[in-house]
Amino acid sequence: MSTPTPTAALLAEIEEIGRDPERGGYSRPGFAAAELTLRDWFVDHARRRGLDVEIDADGVVWAWWLPADGTRHGAIGTGSHLDSVPGGGAYDGPLGVVSALRAMDLLRARIDRPARPLVLMVLPEEEGSRFGVPCLGSRLLTGELTATRARSLVARDGVPFDEALRSAGLDPEVVGARPEALAGLAAFLELHVEQGRGLADLDRPVALGRSILAHGRWRLEIRGRGDHAGSTLMEDRADPVLVAADVVRAVRAAASRVPGARGTVGRIEVVPGGTNVIASRVLLWFDLRHAEEGVVRDLVEEIIAAASSAAEAEGCGIALSEESFSPEVVFDAALRERLGTLLPQAPVLDTGAGHDAGVLAAAIPTGMLFVRNPTGTSHAPDEVTSDEDAEAGSEALAHVLEDLLAHGLRPPTPTRP
Amino acid sequence: MSTPTPTAALLAEIEEIGRDPERGGYSRPGFAAAELTLRDWFVDHARRRGLDVEIDADGVVWAWWLPADGTRHGAIGTGSHLDSVPGGGAYDGPLGVVSALRAMDLLRARIDRPARPLVLMVLPEEEGSRFGVPCLGSRLLTGELTATRARSLVARDGVPFDEALRSAGLDPEVVGARPEALAGLAAFLELHVEQGRGLADLDRPVALGRSILAHGRWRLEIRGRGDHAGSTLMEDRADPVLVAADVVRAVRAAASRVPGARGTVGRIEVVPGGTNVIASRVLLWFDLRHAEEGVVRDLVEEIIAAASSAAEAEGCGIALSEESFSPEVVFDAALRERLGTLLPQAPVLDTGAGHDAGVLAAAIPTGMLFVRNPTGTSHAPDEVTSDEDAEAGSEALAHVLEDLLAHGLRPPTPTRP
Repeated sequence: MSTPTPTAALLAEIEEIGRDPERGGYSRPGFAAAELTLRDWFVDHARRRGLDVEIDADGVVWAWWLPADGTRHGAIGTGSHLDSVPGGGAYDGPLGVVSALRAMDLLRARIDRPARPLVLMVLPEEEGSRFGVPCLGSRLLTGELTATRARSLVARDGVPFDEALRSAGLDPEVVGARPEALAGLAAFLELHVEQGRGLADLDRPVALGRSILAHGRWRLEIRGRGDHAGSTLMEDRADPVLVAADVVRAVRAAASRVPGARGTVGRIEVVPGGTNVIASRVLLWFDLRHAEEGVVRDLVEEIIAAASSAAEAEGCGIALSEESFSPEVVFDAALRERLGTLLPQAPVLDTGAGHDAGVLAAAIPTGMLFVRNPTGTSHAPDEVTSDEDAEAGSEALAHVLEDLLAHGLRPPTPTRP
Repeated sequence: MSTPTPTAALLAEIEEIGRDPERGGYSRPGFAAAELTLRDWFVDHARRRGLDVEIDADGVVWAWWLPADGTRHGAIGTGSHLDSVPGGGAYDGPLGVVSALRAMDLLRARIDRPARPLVLMVLPEEEGSRFGVPCLGSRLLTGELTATRARSLVARDGVPFDEALRSAGLDPEVVGARPEALAGLAAFLELHVEQGRGLADLDRPVALGRSILAHGRWRLEIRGRGDHAGSTLMEDRADPVLVAADVVRAVRAAASRVPGARGTVGRIEVVPGGTNVIASRVLLWFDLRHAEEGVVRDLVEEIIAAASSAAEAEGCGIALSEESFSPEVVFDAALRERLGTLLPQAPVLDTGAGHDAGVLAAAIPTGMLFVRNPTGTSHAPDEVTSDEDAEAGSEALAHVLEDLLAHGLRPPTPTRP
């Protein structure tokens, strides 16, 4: 066996945390044990590097490498998340956090102190797997998710948001937007494993992000009449499972008809869920994405129309709620151009996946680096990246951070001949 | 408020045990806390009545009222179950147990000692909600479920059968068929809340059972390719949720086309179950019933053909397993005739629901009494029976037990003029 690259060695340290023996891969929901263990692991690494670590009211970790004058203003932020979807892969999130640590190590070998502050960031509950709202940490930071709404959330496991925060050592009374912290950031860069086969097809290790599709998630409740599977005649039923089946088909049909759209039903809960019981209720979540917000809205309308007519035919009722919606994000053009100059070999890709960098883009210039994923699979255990590509990602991140720390967001003036 | 009837008063004692605040109604899975609490409650009642209580190796409770000679042979058994489906009603199971206690009280007011042994029985895990095999206790008793297969079962909550038995104070090493115990029973009568509107429509409080439809449950595993809901193109998907939707529709279509058939999908598990995750796997259970076994088998074939073609179209794989199958049961004709003579006002009904009396019918003469359920709803919180009808059921049960205890299974010889 060859020695792992430094980035791979960091990943190896956390490879046993939050494994899911049932689903395979990892289940690391936000503010729960595995994510908190990973957060502690990150804080420990940051402190060992002499960084000044803060965990803010929203659970965002900030690990500061400060310039000589000690300012925290005009900082370059980088990082990602440590939570996962249920049964997710090893890299989605952690790769960006680990690469931030590794990039800092590479920078320290080159410079004594940065000219501007560098802050490594870990954002909680990016996947929204526990509380239903993706990018929960960045949405709190920017105020897009209000404290009031956050505090009304209840986790999938039944734990109220306030209680989850308290058991993570945080105070729900002070949760919410942090405009000053945000204003101190000059830019944020997120490195992420690619969630498709773009780089594999182009045979490149690292890409730049251009945009994130508009995307949202909706929860549909279908109410029928619970009864006995054996003694209830077929014609006497109001079975919400039948309506759910039609909604699944409607989501597929709607998304397949519109080029570039994506529509998915990945979560269904049948209540009460007995084999010999006609369900009284089905909860079904659908996820829709397209570059244009208007198209996503049209898809929702189309699916609801199909759901309504299926529900009417079965004698069921439906109720829809929007759990989150994010318009299309095009990352800051000037920053992307700058990154393109620094990484001339890196192709530019769009992505269908949401990211904290997409949420923060509403407030500050942000950019993304993607690292090759040969399977193209994501949100599943066979998401993968090679040790060499992970290292190449850290080096690319270090390279662009070095330039941004030296010159800020203004590009260096070309040297006169 | 009027004083509750004695049967209603017994039911009121257990009305807080195993309530399900989430689904409504009761969740009392076999060998778990609520069922064990109810079992203890029953044992306590039986002991207070001076009955000799045994809990056998399979968890079946036998509470004996013995004749003067102390024999346990040629016993008349009566009882039902105390477990429930998830979110079930208050009467399905407990009504038969409570009525057995009340009928015994009525009998003791009339006779000092029975001429033959009466045994009140409680059979565990009748619904099969926890281990997937309905009538688990009676199937163990008769040997229809072998010890080997039972001990390979794993509960829905992940607990192996052996462990569940041990935590219920039982020894899994001695689980299995009990032919001598069964041979000691001359007959078994089960009183049960009706699971349809037959008695309500006929305006009668109590009916006799004639038959139970052939019925079974099958577990279908659909394997697809887990991936990211945002970054995976629609044309690149192998999403098992789509196949599941088609199977739900196929079950409905198949069962609706055959008069008297019933087909239900009441339980679906989407793995991993994240909103922004294309599922890798779906587990789906379907329940099919019809008077004729051959028709049920044909329905299974038809559904599997539909599932196979849906799976092929989506690039998914499927695997089917039969969790249980019960051929049609026609209750012992001589015993039913006898009960009809004793309860001349009682209509005779068939039922689509499985019962321990149906399983025991393979070994001994069994019969059933049904008590009116005005809503006709079953396996749901709004299953109901009135205090008066519950009392009428106990009285009818006492009446037929009195006769059976006095004369055994041979009808009394008409008195000569």
